[in-house]
Amino acid sequence: MRVLSGIQPTGRPHWGNYFGAIRQYIDLQEDNEGFYFIADLHALTTVREPEVLRENVMNAALDLLALGLDPSKANLFVQSDIPEVTELTWLLMTGTPMGLLERCHAFKEKKAKGLTADAGLFTYPVLMAADILAYDSQIVPVGVDQVQHIEVCRDLAGSFHHAFGETFVLPKAKTLDVGAKVPGTDGQKMSKSYNNTLPLFGEVKKIRKQIMRIVTDSRPMEDPKDPTDDHLFQLYQLFAGPAEVETMAAKYRAGGFGYGEIKKAVAEVSEEYFAPARAKREELESDLDTVRDILAEGAKRAREVAASVVDRARRNCGLR
Amino acid sequence: MRVLSGIQPTGRPHWGNYFGAIRQYIDLQEDNEGFYFIADLHALTTVREPEVLRENVMNAALDLLALGLDPSKANLFVQSDIPEVTELTWLLMTGTPMGLLERCHAFKEKKAKGLTADAGLFTYPVLMAADILAYDSQIVPVGVDQVQHIEVCRDLAGSFHHAFGETFVLPKAKTLDVGAKVPGTDGQKMSKSYNNTLPLFGEVKKIRKQIMRIVTDSRPMEDPKDPTDDHLFQLYQLFAGPAEVETMAAKYRAGGFGYGEIKKAVAEVSEEYFAPARAKREELESDLDTVRDILAEGAKRAREVAASVVDRARRNCGLR
Repeated sequence: MRVLSGIQPTGRPHWGNYFGAIRQYIDLQEDNEGFYFIADLHALTTVREPEVLRENVMNAALDLLALGLDPSKANLFVQSDIPEVTELTWLLMTGTPMGLLERCHAFKEKKAKGLTADAGLFTYPVLMAADILAYDSQIVPVGVDQVQHIEVCRDLAGSFHHAFGETFVLPKAKTLDVGAKVPGTDGQKMSKSYNNTLPLFGEVKKIRKQIMRIVTDSRPMEDPKDPTDDHLFQLYQLFAGPAEVETMAAKYRAGGFGYGEIKKAVAEVSEEYFAPARAKREELESDLDTVRDILAEGAKRAREVAASVVDRARRNCGLR
Repeated sequence: MRVLSGIQPTGRPHWGNYFGAIRQYIDLQEDNEGFYFIADLHALTTVREPEVLRENVMNAALDLLALGLDPSKANLFVQSDIPEVTELTWLLMTGTPMGLLERCHAFKEKKAKGLTADAGLFTYPVLMAADILAYDSQIVPVGVDQVQHIEVCRDLAGSFHHAFGETFVLPKAKTLDVGAKVPGTDGQKMSKSYNNTLPLFGEVKKIRKQIMRIVTDSRPMEDPKDPTDDHLFQLYQLFAGPAEVETMAAKYRAGGFGYGEIKKAVAEVSEEYFAPARAKREELESDLDTVRDILAEGAKRAREVAASVVDRARRNCGLR
């Protein structure tokens, strides 16, 4: 199956991003043909500093490659390197009812907050539909909050088909597993909007400090504790093997065990867990030309596919 | 100066189009660098039959070439052959306030009539701005009702400059001369919406019949008449030379002169006037490959310019 995933280059990934999404869609490269793009055209609706955008795009590429995206298995490319996508955006736009866009979450929420929206935010679901359709994508892994975009995409493809005949592959959403809990430093779900994230990459010492400052309850050290509802234990579970987890659980239940110890353990297992990715990232950082080559190669392949799909769309609607 | 003009391929041109616009913008090729494009991406918002769109585009090219657009002086090309324009549309879209588009005529009017609009109609001023900015256009000849589009274009360029620094050439509108009156077959202004048009091209016999059926008043033939407020005389003036016009005016004033005679005269002078264009059109129609070559050559030159402008825009906003 051809799998498509778009990554917003808007900041540094955290543990929640990794376990909730990145790891899962990278895994899909094994049994599928992966098309992974860094969505710089989307980012432009919010990132208006050129230097920041450029850095973010390169960082996103470094992150993904470091975390296991394998260019021999999947195509990694930058959205704006495929101009066919904006062509297709216009073709779809001519058949997009205003009401459809007015109902889309991001725009509705911004409007509800009384904020002024721009036409980029309003029309980005059309660009997103073009992103998906341009590669004949079959599967799009998404979070629950993004299922609507796939529906919009299918709607727009359907309108186009209705007007001009069968043209696109209709994609299916694959909802990402939200199984593993990834609490943030305050015990709530880890999320940029709660400002409680732990980054995947960055200075080890600093991350360790952040881990040591994770909030805990004030029960006395001697008390036996139930590990299952403890957020430090939940974090530990993300990284440690079953035997280690069992040992740690026993310590919780026995009591006489301080939160300092589990914090140190989380720091250690997480460092160990991300060590290969960290090393890989450093290696790539010192050889950015290789990263640029990978992106160029990915774009080449992606353009081949997009050019053929967009050519089909153009012919069907009478532009050729 | 670089002059840009977009031609909607939505139907056959009539005398009103010719004297009110086409002739005027073609004339600009003499002292300027003309970029004339056939706006098929815009047409797609209304023409949803592929065969009709294809025919309309080819007809528009034939019309313009037959009417004097000279490919050795100006570039004639098809909008969708320049994909850079849709790329630029997205870049501009990310800085387009919703309010700006909501105030645009076409959308406002459709909404006011209670009709459902699609996002193509809503966002087409952004595409139009990209059309203009992509070629570093300096002058855009427009009808009075289109001045708003140039203002929107300048606004969007201004927002982009504000965010990312100087990037585009700011175009100026050149309002077309509406001097010559071109009445339709019912005496009102010739306009497709009044269904009173006389075509530039088409079967001569049929056009002659349409001219012979032009409505007239019922004053007796013997009466002397004032030529200046007569629509048949106004039509005659479009085609006849000063001496002929003077002779005809004298006949009006003398009386004893029937409308049949002026109708015949209008038919004759108009046929004569358009004869070279008609012959040229027939010649081109029998050699469509030449027309396709002209369009390809025009697109090549237009793409060179657009690629450099869009590259500038991409770099400035951080996409490169």
